[in-house]
Amino acid sequence: MEPSTTPLAQYIWGEENLQRRIEVLKELEHHPVLSVKVNLAGLSRRDNWAVRVQQAQALVELYFRKGWSQEHFLTSNRILGDMPSAPQFRIFIKNLQAQMSPEQKAYWVPKAERFEILGCYAQTEVGHGSNLGGIETRATFDPETDEFILESPTVTSSKIWIGALGAWATHAIVVARLIVKDKEFGNHLFFVQVRDLKTHDVLPGITIYEQRDKTLGTIRGIDNGVMRFFGHRIPRSHMFAGSSSLSRDGTYSPPRNKSHSYTSMIIIRGLLSSELAFDAMRCLYIAAYYTAFRRQFGANGPGQEESPVIQYASVKNRLFSAIAREVTIILNGRQITAAIESGIGSSLDNLHIMTVGGKVYASEHAARDVEVARLLCGGHGHHESAGFGAPYALLSASRTYEGDSYVISLQLGRAIIKNWARAEEDQLPALAYLRRVKNPSAYQQRVGQGKNTNWYDPAVQEDVLEQRVALLAGGFLADEKEGKDTSFQVLELTMAHTDLHYMRGLYAALESAPPESQVALKALANLYIFDTITRGLSTFAGSSYLSLSDLQGLKASLEKSVADFEPHLYTILEAFSFTPLETKSTLCPVDKTPYEAIVDWSKGSELNDNTFMRPVILDVRSMWKKFEQPKL
Amino acid sequence: MEPSTTPLAQYIWGEENLQRRIEVLKELEHHPVLSVKVNLAGLSRRDNWAVRVQQAQALVELYFRKGWSQEHFLTSNRILGDMPSAPQFRIFIKNLQAQMSPEQKAYWVPKAERFEILGCYAQTEVGHGSNLGGIETRATFDPETDEFILESPTVTSSKIWIGALGAWATHAIVVARLIVKDKEFGNHLFFVQVRDLKTHDVLPGITIYEQRDKTLGTIRGIDNGVMRFFGHRIPRSHMFAGSSSLSRDGTYSPPRNKSHSYTSMIIIRGLLSSELAFDAMRCLYIAAYYTAFRRQFGANGPGQEESPVIQYASVKNRLFSAIAREVTIILNGRQITAAIESGIGSSLDNLHIMTVGGKVYASEHAARDVEVARLLCGGHGHHESAGFGAPYALLSASRTYEGDSYVISLQLGRAIIKNWARAEEDQLPALAYLRRVKNPSAYQQRVGQGKNTNWYDPAVQEDVLEQRVALLAGGFLADEKEGKDTSFQVLELTMAHTDLHYMRGLYAALESAPPESQVALKALANLYIFDTITRGLSTFAGSSYLSLSDLQGLKASLEKSVADFEPHLYTILEAFSFTPLETKSTLCPVDKTPYEAIVDWSKGSELNDNTFMRPVILDVRSMWKKFEQPKL
Repeated sequence: MEPSTTPLAQYIWGEENLQRRIEVLKELEHHPVLSVKVNLAGLSRRDNWAVRVQQAQALVELYFRKGWSQEHFLTSNRILGDMPSAPQFRIFIKNLQAQMSPEQKAYWVPKAERFEILGCYAQTEVGHGSNLGGIETRATFDPETDEFILESPTVTSSKIWIGALGAWATHAIVVARLIVKDKEFGNHLFFVQVRDLKTHDVLPGITIYEQRDKTLGTIRGIDNGVMRFFGHRIPRSHMFAGSSSLSRDGTYSPPRNKSHSYTSMIIIRGLLSSELAFDAMRCLYIAAYYTAFRRQFGANGPGQEESPVIQYASVKNRLFSAIAREVTIILNGRQITAAIESGIGSSLDNLHIMTVGGKVYASEHAARDVEVARLLCGGHGHHESAGFGAPYALLSASRTYEGDSYVISLQLGRAIIKNWARAEEDQLPALAYLRRVKNPSAYQQRVGQGKNTNWYDPAVQEDVLEQRVALLAGGFLADEKEGKDTSFQVLELTMAHTDLHYMRGLYAALESAPPESQVALKALANLYIFDTITRGLSTFAGSSYLSLSDLQGLKASLEKSVADFEPHLYTILEAFSFTPLETKSTLCPVDKTPYEAIVDWSKGSELNDNTFMRPVILDVRSMWKKFEQPKL
Repeated sequence: MEPSTTPLAQYIWGEENLQRRIEVLKELEHHPVLSVKVNLAGLSRRDNWAVRVQQAQALVELYFRKGWSQEHFLTSNRILGDMPSAPQFRIFIKNLQAQMSPEQKAYWVPKAERFEILGCYAQTEVGHGSNLGGIETRATFDPETDEFILESPTVTSSKIWIGALGAWATHAIVVARLIVKDKEFGNHLFFVQVRDLKTHDVLPGITIYEQRDKTLGTIRGIDNGVMRFFGHRIPRSHMFAGSSSLSRDGTYSPPRNKSHSYTSMIIIRGLLSSELAFDAMRCLYIAAYYTAFRRQFGANGPGQEESPVIQYASVKNRLFSAIAREVTIILNGRQITAAIESGIGSSLDNLHIMTVGGKVYASEHAARDVEVARLLCGGHGHHESAGFGAPYALLSASRTYEGDSYVISLQLGRAIIKNWARAEEDQLPALAYLRRVKNPSAYQQRVGQGKNTNWYDPAVQEDVLEQRVALLAGGFLADEKEGKDTSFQVLELTMAHTDLHYMRGLYAALESAPPESQVALKALANLYIFDTITRGLSTFAGSSYLSLSDLQGLKASLEKSVADFEPHLYTILEAFSFTPLETKSTLCPVDKTPYEAIVDWSKGSELNDNTFMRPVILDVRSMWKKFEQPKL
């Protein structure tokens, strides 16, 4: 099966990404190791990881043999799923590049790029996740030996959740507090070899334990690790010297600006803003395929065919709106990545808010939308082979990793507080809705409110979404003023903020969409916007901003947009055209029906030969004889 | 650790249930097989199932030795989790009891009760889940041999998702269309031996495959199966003859009433209405324990302790309201079970609606609230050992099994249509809110609306919740009248319907609560009700029913109710006092801190000895040498 290369496909994936995806799929599809359909779920954790290590080995070989870029490697790793090689480029090398001095880079990056050293990034501690200021690991400079002494003084200071540290990595980037002559200089990065390069034994002065299974039975191929240092020494040259540094005599040069560590976070969150939506789309793609195949109820008599379930409002409304949302997230997420690539440093505050919003929005919706996809497939969605489990587990976790949704939403709150008091021209443009909070009377009534509201008018749509975030921001500021804890409401605020920006971004994206896809994408945009406004209506309770007739118009517009989207569904799906290697789903097979695929899959069960347990079962069935009262 | 037996504990669990739970826990806690902490997640599917079969064997032995009731067995099975013995009483014997003739029961039930035969219930087919009318399996009467011939004519007619059929069961209750002399009589139940009683081989004329892993890595201990019949024969006496029957000459006696199969569904949904909430509470219990322990941010200076995360509004609001909701569901779910036990047959329509609402409400909220619990625990909530994975997977699936939430919500819609046109005295009392749809002008303005609304007045609370469901029912009826597909909106309608009834039921339940718990439970009730009203506000957008000042009052009341609940949190939690055998969580240990428990758990990882994969890792690290251009 060939991925689609229509103009719409190029537009949605991005030309370069799509090209790379096609190249990579071609290699993976018939690869003797990477295309083998191992039933990973049925394996023990140990065997599962072993298979994944062997696949990582095959992938590294392919990377060398084909002379692939790191993007090719990353794309392959994403398609194949969790393997210990995943952090190498994505986190390890990215941080070497961003935070080492030129000399350090020249030495280490090539070694990492050729997998001579295997890396991981060790930041989180048992007691310190969100609050990096609480990190306890210490790197104390010993001027006598020109070394740092690494120490984990407590259980809480153990590094934890470090991907690929548990068994795979030879080197770790370690976040630790720098201490020189009893003075603390805050968190810095240190390059730490953790395993012997010949034997792969953990080095003395370090303990590493692998963390065992993650929740929901997935990411079994990555060996996350817990690590503790007991006076382990590293040379002074292993402190990352991209911005700050320490001289031989212990003189500390602070970083010129603090934006560096900030930047790597922005890059990762920017990437997640669209990546997570592709994962959700893959699941919705399966659900769309299967709900069009599946028939239930609606037969006009005995022997008549039942109706495809995709024709029911309960399926359509959920499926179509989720697809419209995830495509919108992809298009906006790409704009965020583009802004980061073009504009780092220029308006870091703006990029920061943008990536917080993008990451929170993408992860909250993706986790929900994968659930929607699975529920739409009914009972058969619960087969492991349906392919929803791993994406759900990953996307659900994405609400926590790289920043808990509530915790990072606090940063939008802070930006609002900071910008609120400023003159309009000094405010971040993204927060322009604050003018409504300053001058609410000017915005009580919307143009056309109450009669003949044209919901298809982008100005009306924007007005309603802006009013909503302004109402929430106003409530937030009032609570802040009263000294209340606003950490709960910031998530809704961030979601509403992003609703507004994504509606704008979606219209902007449509301008560069291929002409032949304009009608389809306009239908998608309407559905996304009406659905989004409808989901946010609770903010308007108790307000006269929207009238009953407005609401009726909105309901009718949403219904119409669902119907209008329907003829374009397959145009959109075709642009994604996920291959079996990507969907990994018995509900979406190419050479048979989903029903046949499910039954065939069951034929391979590990328990079909259950003779090994029959003595136990027979014992259970005769046990009553031992306990029954003898009959006289 | 002893479960609490305070009056509140007796009230929440029910005296009998609590007593049974204590008896059972006492036996399980130190049982040589059942208390062994096997790391099931790390095992292969085959080994995992084998352990579970051995535990089922030990449980059956305990059941005989202690002379336990079937309730004791069921309670144990629920605590221990998924084992193939789970369907024996819960589904298999329950249906034998409900649907066999007295003679059939006298013969088969004792055999089943002593595990001489192992059973399962085979209804769902590959192509037919919700729509039982579409079932294709045929049981054709052969008058010559006095037998039925079972046939699965198509792939879609294969029985699927049959718990314990894949490898464990000897007998299945099979739903099939009865055919006599070329005439169809619809679905009936047949008692079918599927495996040889001596060898445990599948009988000729039948194929059975085990379905392999379920999604999200759980329920691995139950062998769900796919089954197909190829002319398999069973004696005529194996047709369930509780209501309908077939005589030797092929004369069919139809059932006197259709309520029988209906009843077993009502019983199961009634049970789920409270059971699922106990599962969710177990997770919230873990989260409450851990968020009180976990500290993050808020330190007043270096070396100062950070704040327990439970003190943040973002944690409190989510945790407390989820606990209030799940307790409310438990108390109402128990009323449903009591109504079923006391009133079967008297008002089946009412019981039916009640159990649809109860099951949908319990499953939708439980799945969400377990997610809340996990997210509240941040990164460490993602350890498999945190204990959230299995409950989430089960509760998420509960939105599908025993009826998809959307599909069974249609039944409330049907009841509304049926009752709508009737005179008030002929309507189901549960639908009394329909009077507001008939006469909306009388209910436009609420007592006290706009000024000095007393949100603590139960009449005000009831009025708002009734108005909400009336608005939704009115919209539903209008759409029905226009011939629209209402299958999407019925879920929100069912949830709002249940909000209203559970608010009433909660007040009713408080009347029989122990006097010393009244203050705590009143605080819980306020929180549940204010949170529930707040979640439903979108229905009031565009309506003048609630004023801005009403909304401000509601917000203040909700905030106050969160604060008022806080001092009672541990009173509520103590009443649950889940033991380690029940929580199965490193975040909730009794003899160490959660942090120590997590690190200790990691010390046992299957990958800590990774020497078996080191040759591969070393090969990855030296592979570059093979591909590097020779330097001249």
